[in-house]
Amino acid sequence: MDSTTLLGFFGGILTTISFLPQVIKTWKTRSTSDVSLWMFLLLCIGIIIWIIYGFLINSLPVIFANLISFILTSIILVFKIRYK
Amino acid sequence: MDSTTLLGFFGGILTTISFLPQVIKTWKTRSTSDVSLWMFLLLCIGIIIWIIYGFLINSLPVIFANLISFILTSIILVFKIRYK
Repeated sequence: MDSTTLLGFFGGILTTISFLPQVIKTWKTRSTSDVSLWMFLLLCIGIIIWIIYGFLINSLPVIFANLISFILTSIILVFKIRYK
Repeated sequence: MDSTTLLGFFGGILTTISFLPQVIKTWKTRSTSDVSLWMFLLLCIGIIIWIIYGFLINSLPVIFANLISFILTSIILVFKIRYK
């Protein structure tokens, strides 16, 4: 794996795991009133498109980062809808 | 511009503007207690790395989407630090 792909994976890991603290926070507090529904709705749809784009440009960092981001952001979205 | 790049831009527009509703919500309410500080901190750092990766793989959608995302997420981060 070349250094560019490694850097891409590193960026991908950071932006992907960034959603984890929000998942944990929302899981613990069950409170989402300050979290924007539209943010996570648009984010989930956009991430699906990024995954398709990642396949088309053959970029493993784009594919993997967005796959995991999708799982985490959709969990936050479900929390937001469930616990208003 | 080919259709793959167009799709990338579309995904980029969606994930990028997704942060706007959160900026507006936080601007209005000045309340960020349900928003995770770590989420937006990791997101900002990760997005900077994505921008560098975008330059290295010559992907305009990756560069542009992440540039605007960085502006919006850093605003949310400042709000989070300012209005705990």
